[in-house]
Amino acid sequence: MESPNPSTAGKPIRCKAAVCRKAGEPLAIEEINVDPPRAREARIRVICTSICNTDVSFWRMTSSPGGFFPRILGHEAVGVVESVGEGVTELKTGDTVVPVFLPDCGGECADCRSENSNLCSKLPFKLSPGMPRDGTSRFADLRGNVIHNFLSVSGFSEYTVVDVAHLTKVDSSAPPERACLLNCGIAAGVGAAWRKANVQKGSTVAIFGLGSIGLAVAEGARLCGAGRVIGIDAYPEKLEMAKKFGVTEFVNPVDCGDKSLSQVCHLKTPENFELEESGRVINEMTGGGADSCFECAGSPSLMEQAYASCRKGWGKTIVLGVGGEGSEMKLKCMDVLQSGRTLTGALFGGLKPKTHIPILLQRYIHKELELDKFVTHEMEFEDINKAFDLLVEGKCLRCVIWLYRPDQSAACLMPRVV
Amino acid sequence: MESPNPSTAGKPIRCKAAVCRKAGEPLAIEEINVDPPRAREARIRVICTSICNTDVSFWRMTSSPGGFFPRILGHEAVGVVESVGEGVTELKTGDTVVPVFLPDCGGECADCRSENSNLCSKLPFKLSPGMPRDGTSRFADLRGNVIHNFLSVSGFSEYTVVDVAHLTKVDSSAPPERACLLNCGIAAGVGAAWRKANVQKGSTVAIFGLGSIGLAVAEGARLCGAGRVIGIDAYPEKLEMAKKFGVTEFVNPVDCGDKSLSQVCHLKTPENFELEESGRVINEMTGGGADSCFECAGSPSLMEQAYASCRKGWGKTIVLGVGGEGSEMKLKCMDVLQSGRTLTGALFGGLKPKTHIPILLQRYIHKELELDKFVTHEMEFEDINKAFDLLVEGKCLRCVIWLYRPDQSAACLMPRVV
Repeated sequence: MESPNPSTAGKPIRCKAAVCRKAGEPLAIEEINVDPPRAREARIRVICTSICNTDVSFWRMTSSPGGFFPRILGHEAVGVVESVGEGVTELKTGDTVVPVFLPDCGGECADCRSENSNLCSKLPFKLSPGMPRDGTSRFADLRGNVIHNFLSVSGFSEYTVVDVAHLTKVDSSAPPERACLLNCGIAAGVGAAWRKANVQKGSTVAIFGLGSIGLAVAEGARLCGAGRVIGIDAYPEKLEMAKKFGVTEFVNPVDCGDKSLSQVCHLKTPENFELEESGRVINEMTGGGADSCFECAGSPSLMEQAYASCRKGWGKTIVLGVGGEGSEMKLKCMDVLQSGRTLTGALFGGLKPKTHIPILLQRYIHKELELDKFVTHEMEFEDINKAFDLLVEGKCLRCVIWLYRPDQSAACLMPRVV
Repeated sequence: MESPNPSTAGKPIRCKAAVCRKAGEPLAIEEINVDPPRAREARIRVICTSICNTDVSFWRMTSSPGGFFPRILGHEAVGVVESVGEGVTELKTGDTVVPVFLPDCGGECADCRSENSNLCSKLPFKLSPGMPRDGTSRFADLRGNVIHNFLSVSGFSEYTVVDVAHLTKVDSSAPPERACLLNCGIAAGVGAAWRKANVQKGSTVAIFGLGSIGLAVAEGARLCGAGRVIGIDAYPEKLEMAKKFGVTEFVNPVDCGDKSLSQVCHLKTPENFELEESGRVINEMTGGGADSCFECAGSPSLMEQAYASCRKGWGKTIVLGVGGEGSEMKLKCMDVLQSGRTLTGALFGGLKPKTHIPILLQRYIHKELELDKFVTHEMEFEDINKAFDLLVEGKCLRCVIWLYRPDQSAACLMPRVV
């Protein structure tokens, strides 16, 4: 991997970024200025960025926790360190890094020291913009107006500045167009099966919602040697695709009419079994419930059904879906006591970025973890709005956007000092 | 330990029992007939039985899941096997046994084979009367009318018949008036800290509700080496007593007025901090939440507060309290996802009767587990209604009722064949 030009260190850089100027409107590829990194930050040349539904959600959002414009979205990037700010000893120019929305201070706080938490308390995860340590932005348009960053990453820019707590150094020989899948939903799904649920060989897994996170759970379950992987989704075309991801059985909740999945009160199998409340369908299919259930849709009723569908005694339900603001799930108190089931949630699947991303990448390189099947599209940076269309239309799992290809000429790679 | 008279084997026995003939009325000590044990059952001479609030609850109950009369209550007994039915190879006349409400088939089902479940699926736990395998009763009054059993134990009788799945053989040299504390609430509290929460040395524990189960959690936490044990209860006299059980800090929710604890919406410390929703008091006391929270009152709002009071990342909330029928707890979906906390429940504290009761008994004998402090009263069988009064008045943690003392004359010990 070619080292970025060190002569730019300490100076603002001018480059292209896809700027979201208004909710739901096409991103504008424009020239911006990127400040040099401050203390404990690094400036990154972005190689590629994949797009996740969270980008789409925040692109559309007009109010809390989004609604900050202009903003540079993108949080599934891979890049190369161009320069580092004061006090950065763990990274140097030329290092390949995976920026991650979830901070990992690397051991300064009790959470990062603990094996059991991935929720850094030194620089807590936040949805609002601003660099983690000082709350300001490193981006501005050519008139000097601030452009907000996104999830501490902002991958839709040729250059971005990221706090070291949000950077994981990875093997530079790994394909960047796959490494970029390891910092959000795909890793979260795999990690939830691997780390949070600790799926056992031969065990039964049920996945509620077969979007990319749900399919990533399936991949994680396959990796852990699960015996049965039951997928639940209202859209038959997803069920068909799920076969490629190791889903062995399907429950297709029909009779949804024009309701969204989260509104469906009576999910039914083709045989008309009611799933609601009792989790009866999964319980009947599995002789008492799945060993692990994963909710990947953000629906309170699905969370309740997932809980009711996991095995008494040892069953675990892991919530991965992002619920609507203020939405609540209900559990019968006697069920909680008598079933012995466990309910938990997992931001980023319980993975600790600096510890587990390199492990997952090695498992990809060793052909254990299958990442290729998640990438349904690749595009050049200038086509980024087409990628958004594909995601909105549900035609895409992951689209990789190339910002810098190794075969580009040295001239066009050279960063321009402002 | 004297062996019961083997000549009674296979024949009905006449003995005394405390019969609950009507909800809430004093138990009637009367002569009853006890059938011989059928297949996979044993007839037990009861030595002593302690009384638990579950006895009081069912004594008062007029409808589901109670309301069966006449009935012989009592489920914290210790006894000696008088005779065994067909196919019983694991027990013999003279063995000391602890009958337990929770079945443990010993490995015939997947749950009993698993280390992670204590919910036998061969003979599932039930609240309704009737022997586990055939649903009939072994008790009748002298006119031949059926008397119902209770929780598969019915310890308020000189003789009872118990399925082998509900019997744990224990060291006959152990004091029965302590061993009888190991088959319900006391063991559940200790077990929940030890097995279900796996309380770590130096960690912080919060206990919501300082009844006998809550105090048993404190004892379990002490045994596991917890650093801080925070007790939360509305009654100052309980808080005072809790000191003896290793509770190191108190939150006294005042301003309860005449409401029951489960109705309290705004639990406050003396400093007037609100505990509701945010779990702020405990979070502030502990710098982010307790490592393990235990709900021991059966209150949905306390369950929610316990959940909100446990540490993000690794905190566990264990529900031990018996919630009202149909009562529900609510969790914010985003909290479940983002906090990474775990919620679970534990019938019998997650203990597997045949595996863990003997271990706890040994820890008592080796002076590690402190059981003596739970026994606030002892009485003769004929005074059993006084013991009920003490529990109703909240003046008693555990009262041991003696049905057979080793110093009684051989004559009065001899069972009488009908």
